[in-house]
Amino acid sequence: MSRGILLVVSAPSAGGKGTILGELFNRDGNLRMSVSATTRRPREGEEHGKHYYFISREEFRGLIDSGSMLEYAEYVGNLYGTPRGPVEQWLSEGHDVVLEIEVQGGAQIKKLAPDCVSVFITPPSMEVLEKRLRGRGTENEETIRKRLETARRELPQAENYDYVVINDRLEDAVDDMQAILRSEKLRYMRDPDFIKGLLAGPKA
Amino acid sequence: MSRGILLVVSAPSAGGKGTILGELFNRDGNLRMSVSATTRRPREGEEHGKHYYFISREEFRGLIDSGSMLEYAEYVGNLYGTPRGPVEQWLSEGHDVVLEIEVQGGAQIKKLAPDCVSVFITPPSMEVLEKRLRGRGTENEETIRKRLETARRELPQAENYDYVVINDRLEDAVDDMQAILRSEKLRYMRDPDFIKGLLAGPKA
Repeated sequence: MSRGILLVVSAPSAGGKGTILGELFNRDGNLRMSVSATTRRPREGEEHGKHYYFISREEFRGLIDSGSMLEYAEYVGNLYGTPRGPVEQWLSEGHDVVLEIEVQGGAQIKKLAPDCVSVFITPPSMEVLEKRLRGRGTENEETIRKRLETARRELPQAENYDYVVINDRLEDAVDDMQAILRSEKLRYMRDPDFIKGLLAGPKA
Repeated sequence: MSRGILLVVSAPSAGGKGTILGELFNRDGNLRMSVSATTRRPREGEEHGKHYYFISREEFRGLIDSGSMLEYAEYVGNLYGTPRGPVEQWLSEGHDVVLEIEVQGGAQIKKLAPDCVSVFITPPSMEVLEKRLRGRGTENEETIRKRLETARRELPQAENYDYVVINDRLEDAVDDMQAILRSEKLRYMRDPDFIKGLLAGPKA
């Protein structure tokens, strides 16, 4: 069985990442979602091991020191990170694993795992993004303006990613994600011994 | 409209390339097949511009000298090559173009066109390849032995290609080819100005 693919996914503010990943997980039973560890307290309804691994600052530091964190960052006084163990386990079992990271972390992607595949999800245009933000009807003018500003600042980070998926029609965007996973599995570099095995013939 | 993709395809002897490409062309109307030029005489039923461009040695040399051949080789006293003109025209019109080349030419692929995408088609195993060769019932033992030898020599050339597609089930192999074309169009590097355009907004 061949090793799974680590799919790193980011999107600027209101890029529609959640909807696309939700539909991708509906379609693809082989996919696993990486769960982050955090030192912050659980909120109402959050489950340990599902939404986050809730651990102490000491435990978190221990994981960093032993090289067991794929990536981590401090945010408003709390530590957030991706424990390497579960991700590695899934990949070795042949599962593809989605790792969501902040756009700001994009520059470090290839350091995380050189063979990961990274996807940046964008809105089709700033106009559509604005329309979507207003369409929610939940945010005031000031918040909408700030979110658009954030998106403008984050969009150029796409250059740190392998692929850009445009979130226009949901079905198309999810088809795009699936095509990326499918074709990446076919890369010669993912299994350079394949041909050798083919020439050696079936194992006794 | 974005530029098409130049898809370079090779397969070892009896790899099943023809069948896969035939089905790919049935499915994808945007695809174009690159037509080679040759100095050999047309055979019964071969049409100029469809099977080959039949040109004189002088014309062929002229195309080489003016840099108008993407690649070329001499084979049993005749010149064969890919005229750059039609390929460039199609790519600029947004068509994807398939260029079949001999496995031996694989090492030069990236020199042809740095942004081309290359696919090596393999049989699932040497046993299946042998079964297929025998199944045809048209070749004698000596020919089959030679073809298997050629395949053994050609298979390691897969390392010069971006992707390896296994010709096991035809449908799967064609799905693979389509996934490769789809995902390659999403590569950030294919359209590094996309985000800039998005931020600039619609043109007046």
